[in-house]
Amino acid sequence: MEKEVNIAVLGLGVVASGLIENLTIAKEKIKQQTGVALSITKVMVRSKEKRRAQAEKHQLTFTTEIDEILEDPTIDIVVELIGGVSDAKKWITQSLQQGKHVVTANKDLIAQFGNELTAIAKDHNVSLFYEASVAGGVPILQNLNTNFIADEITGIQGILNGTTNFMLTQMAEQEESYEEALKTAQTAGFAESDPTNDVDGWDAVYKLIILARLALGKNLSLTDIETQGIREITQRDMTYAQEFGYQIKLLAQAEKKAEKVYAAVTPVLIPKTHPLALVRNEMNGVFIESKLIGSSMFYGPGAGASPTAVSVLTDILRIVQGKEKEGPATQMSCSELPKGELAKRDVTNNYFLITNCTVDIETFLAKHQIKPLMIQQRLEKTEAAFITDKLTEEEKCSLKKQLQQISNIKQILNVWED
Amino acid sequence: MEKEVNIAVLGLGVVASGLIENLTIAKEKIKQQTGVALSITKVMVRSKEKRRAQAEKHQLTFTTEIDEILEDPTIDIVVELIGGVSDAKKWITQSLQQGKHVVTANKDLIAQFGNELTAIAKDHNVSLFYEASVAGGVPILQNLNTNFIADEITGIQGILNGTTNFMLTQMAEQEESYEEALKTAQTAGFAESDPTNDVDGWDAVYKLIILARLALGKNLSLTDIETQGIREITQRDMTYAQEFGYQIKLLAQAEKKAEKVYAAVTPVLIPKTHPLALVRNEMNGVFIESKLIGSSMFYGPGAGASPTAVSVLTDILRIVQGKEKEGPATQMSCSELPKGELAKRDVTNNYFLITNCTVDIETFLAKHQIKPLMIQQRLEKTEAAFITDKLTEEEKCSLKKQLQQISNIKQILNVWED
Repeated sequence: MEKEVNIAVLGLGVVASGLIENLTIAKEKIKQQTGVALSITKVMVRSKEKRRAQAEKHQLTFTTEIDEILEDPTIDIVVELIGGVSDAKKWITQSLQQGKHVVTANKDLIAQFGNELTAIAKDHNVSLFYEASVAGGVPILQNLNTNFIADEITGIQGILNGTTNFMLTQMAEQEESYEEALKTAQTAGFAESDPTNDVDGWDAVYKLIILARLALGKNLSLTDIETQGIREITQRDMTYAQEFGYQIKLLAQAEKKAEKVYAAVTPVLIPKTHPLALVRNEMNGVFIESKLIGSSMFYGPGAGASPTAVSVLTDILRIVQGKEKEGPATQMSCSELPKGELAKRDVTNNYFLITNCTVDIETFLAKHQIKPLMIQQRLEKTEAAFITDKLTEEEKCSLKKQLQQISNIKQILNVWED
Repeated sequence: MEKEVNIAVLGLGVVASGLIENLTIAKEKIKQQTGVALSITKVMVRSKEKRRAQAEKHQLTFTTEIDEILEDPTIDIVVELIGGVSDAKKWITQSLQQGKHVVTANKDLIAQFGNELTAIAKDHNVSLFYEASVAGGVPILQNLNTNFIADEITGIQGILNGTTNFMLTQMAEQEESYEEALKTAQTAGFAESDPTNDVDGWDAVYKLIILARLALGKNLSLTDIETQGIREITQRDMTYAQEFGYQIKLLAQAEKKAEKVYAAVTPVLIPKTHPLALVRNEMNGVFIESKLIGSSMFYGPGAGASPTAVSVLTDILRIVQGKEKEGPATQMSCSELPKGELAKRDVTNNYFLITNCTVDIETFLAKHQIKPLMIQQRLEKTEAAFITDKLTEEEKCSLKKQLQQISNIKQILNVWED
């Protein structure tokens, strides 16, 4: 019993083109396995002229008017891959209101308006899915929704930004400077000419907001998340961290503390023996701590046309397979989650410091009752790096103050222990 | 709209007890999220007397007769956790024939009779799910079934046996001998008093057969899989491998080569930079190579009462959520897969060798046109370890022969490069 499902795609960028290519390859296989013939019947673009060649190659019908999609009763699913917030939000809202299921990869939009849009989807008995919005080809959202129903997640940590992870890997393994690593990432197509969104951590923050909803059932806003990018990380930081047995990673983390949440996107030192330490280059990894399962990790490509398009396609297939059966449409998250009350970082933490002090650092630390776990002093005592034992916030501030009286502190980072 | 679903459990071992505990903890949460009240209403045990305390604690009804479950129309799902093949197969068959869904963690049974049982399930429009049979708390089977529909998997590699992985980690990190590591594993409850099934690779072989069905769509039998356990691995092998930049792991792998399959469970050297190298202790990891996504890994606890019980519970919830809707029951795998035609290992491979030769090994290798990637000769030239460049099977045999004329070869292992 073959069934036809028609899709409209908004946008024709990298992921949309990947989706069209992948569906061409996989159409027959999907038909065999699910009994459904998937077709992209309309694509909305800003200008038809520019895209003529692509339209002819894949025999696509292009439109510049959203109404031609909204008013087309043969279209079952709208896939939004046009990006941005304002127009995308309007078009998704209209599509849901017209009774069309929506799949999107738009993390900015879902992070900011996911609850509102999910409520609209629910009201119109259609689904809103967005697997591709977090960690590209890694099926993390669906896994959070299915395998942890009986469990309770206590913390989630992720390397969610491929650009910065590629840069940090270049710095750690190729001994590149920050500037060199940025240039390499741009040449390899992993960083945009204006890398702000990635290197300052905002991309990861949006993804963490989405993860926190599904993993912890809490709503967080941008300002709830302690955010620090990687601009201040130097190749020298890397060298010391590696000598001490750590990798520096831009880690997104949301931890449940009693009923509160601590959330941050910051560069931290991760022990080399932890699975997240081997998430290299443009790859992503999401590590989950839960009461019943314990530790899990999901690893895969964080970006790229093909992997991201697979996540979009998997969402489409989930909708299609749900549509086969009667019953209410499912959503990826609840639209009425409580606002997460904020917790502080752990009471005590280990810190990694680099300072250009000229005094003997061991003597200095002993005098201030700091017992370093690791210590390195080189360059004829013009520079020292060390990792402190567990310090409270006050102890850290006091140490910082004392050190600033005799030196410049070049770096201070948190050491993450699971 | 609350719905009641009743479960019967066959067996009351570690996982069954974990399931009962977990369901007690999660029952309310599951009811809130799915609208279903799950109850374990009957448990089949060999002797009621021995289990009286447990029965009273959880208010369970015990039976020693399968008919009391088969003939009970209020029971929707039978969970088989009794193990073994013969009885379990009979009881699962009868349950399916009675129109009851079945969930099992029984890898031996599914590896050998999965197709036959799936066909019976299909005939009676009920589901047979077995997520917990492979990699305990890692939801690998469901992920293979949902996220790779549009993709094509070309290879799957897994650390699937927690016992041997724990032992190898002890040997690598605590410098224990094989015998010491086995004793540590037994004391920690990770190895049985007769460890044959684990250390000789059979446990991983069964799991690989199940994975190959879902990942590659091919049926393999026991004899199709090149199998070698870890009994011959010494602490010295570990030391050399680590010095060369590798970890020794018992790797289960199934690789598609054209339309054929190469499948093996053998100890191999894995580069320390590969994510599988950080699957330590009793943890499991499954690495997937596919055409569209590229590389993925799923990581988590390979055994243990609670994680395994979560996988069983997730299967139960999938059945329950499918039951909500009309339509045919779904299965984890197709019952009519083709027999996998066997391919050979790659044409050329890197090999890791240890030999007690007394001649200078560099000179010897140069004479035989072998360009080693890594080499170590110590103990006043009474022992040498090295990794060869890529050799064909013939070249390897020839090297082995030459070496045997002047020394005893202590170890020869494959080096795995993805």
